[in-house]
Amino acid sequence: MTIELTPIGFVKHKAASVPRHCSVSTVEGRLVIEPQYQEGLRDIQPGQHLVVIFHFDRSPPFTPDRLVQKPPHRQEKLGVFSICSPFRPNPLGLSVLEVLEVKDNIILVKGLDMLDGTPILDLKPFVPPAPWGVRLGS
Amino acid sequence: MTIELTPIGFVKHKAASVPRHCSVSTVEGRLVIEPQYQEGLRDIQPGQHLVVIFHFDRSPPFTPDRLVQKPPHRQEKLGVFSICSPFRPNPLGLSVLEVLEVKDNIILVKGLDMLDGTPILDLKPFVPPAPWGVRLGS
Repeated sequence: MTIELTPIGFVKHKAASVPRHCSVSTVEGRLVIEPQYQEGLRDIQPGQHLVVIFHFDRSPPFTPDRLVQKPPHRQEKLGVFSICSPFRPNPLGLSVLEVLEVKDNIILVKGLDMLDGTPILDLKPFVPPAPWGVRLGS
Repeated sequence: MTIELTPIGFVKHKAASVPRHCSVSTVEGRLVIEPQYQEGLRDIQPGQHLVVIFHFDRSPPFTPDRLVQKPPHRQEKLGVFSICSPFRPNPLGLSVLEVLEVKDNIILVKGLDMLDGTPILDLKPFVPPAPWGVRLGS
């Protein structure tokens, strides 16, 4: 069974490097969404947090030796499903970004941890699970 | 540009129906992961929250009339990227579930909002963004 996806847009920024995770990033940049999807952006608001699902497009094919990996910032090896490594069975990334502005088909965001040119697959409202407070999304 | 993904496992549960969102669900069930990925599960702990990216495998192909939709629980129409509808340009779903137990290649979870048989694409630790508190994941 194979699932085929097509990017809805691309990440654009000019930072020389990005932090390893959005939770520790202040990098600003743009999510440039294909114009055909612009109407779907109309309720995204400055100040909200946006979940971005993206493609780790520069990751090599997954191999079993990556089932357990040592993250750069940790001393021990951890199972791939307990870390945010770009080397995963399906090369999907997830970031939660702060929306600064929405202008036509472009979303200005803060908190980027993706490389410039990263393909975007989906955008969703951030809805924290119960222990982290009230529902904020839809 | 097309991105091809293959399920790493499937959701299994016996609930007659599931709530519309994991944040309001107490449904329990199993994430049955392909045995070849079992080693990657070794650091998933009971009590933690797990991000599950899945395939809305029963959604029809996306059409432009779905760029704006009225969710069942809302009065107004909203842009598709501000709601969690299964009708999306790329049919990707996201749930944050509580881990009850990990046994071999099976994860018992609480909070399911996916249909029985839903293909699972990735598992990640839940890392709340800064406004929701300290980092919990890796």
